[in-house]
Amino acid sequence: MYKAKVYVTLKESVLDPQGQAVKESLHSLDYHKVADVRIGKYMELQLNAGSVNEAESVVEEMCQKLLANPVIEKFRYDIEEATA
Amino acid sequence: MYKAKVYVTLKESVLDPQGQAVKESLHSLDYHKVADVRIGKYMELQLNAGSVNEAESVVEEMCQKLLANPVIEKFRYDIEEATA
Repeated sequence: MYKAKVYVTLKESVLDPQGQAVKESLHSLDYHKVADVRIGKYMELQLNAGSVNEAESVVEEMCQKLLANPVIEKFRYDIEEATA
Repeated sequence: MYKAKVYVTLKESVLDPQGQAVKESLHSLDYHKVADVRIGKYMELQLNAGSVNEAESVVEEMCQKLLANPVIEKFRYDIEEATA
């Protein structure tokens, strides 16, 4: 059993209105030191894969096909062996 | 300038219908090795703080007040010095 931690973020060139809204909310709460906020997704997957390499290639494929939108988003992931 | 990476996830005991839906979508795409999916938020903040300690305490406060819902979510964060 492997655990994959997947981070999906908007590409630098893509506007992030959700992050902008959070930044403005933080400013209205008097956190004026916040210069920028970018919001992404974080996913944890449990995988019944035979090896780290197999888990990696499955996660890469799933990110390309479903978990991220490669047109506007980039992704990265870490795979670790899960004990339970 | 500091960069804070904030990870917000649902507590273990809280159901994750979004993760369940993603898991079922992955199964329908023939990724049957996926045993579980949990979905959270990932945020990157740029902070004009004077020190790592100051940045840490500000991020902790912002998480408690706005970025996470401590009733159903837990959060963790890493602070690093940003070069630009």
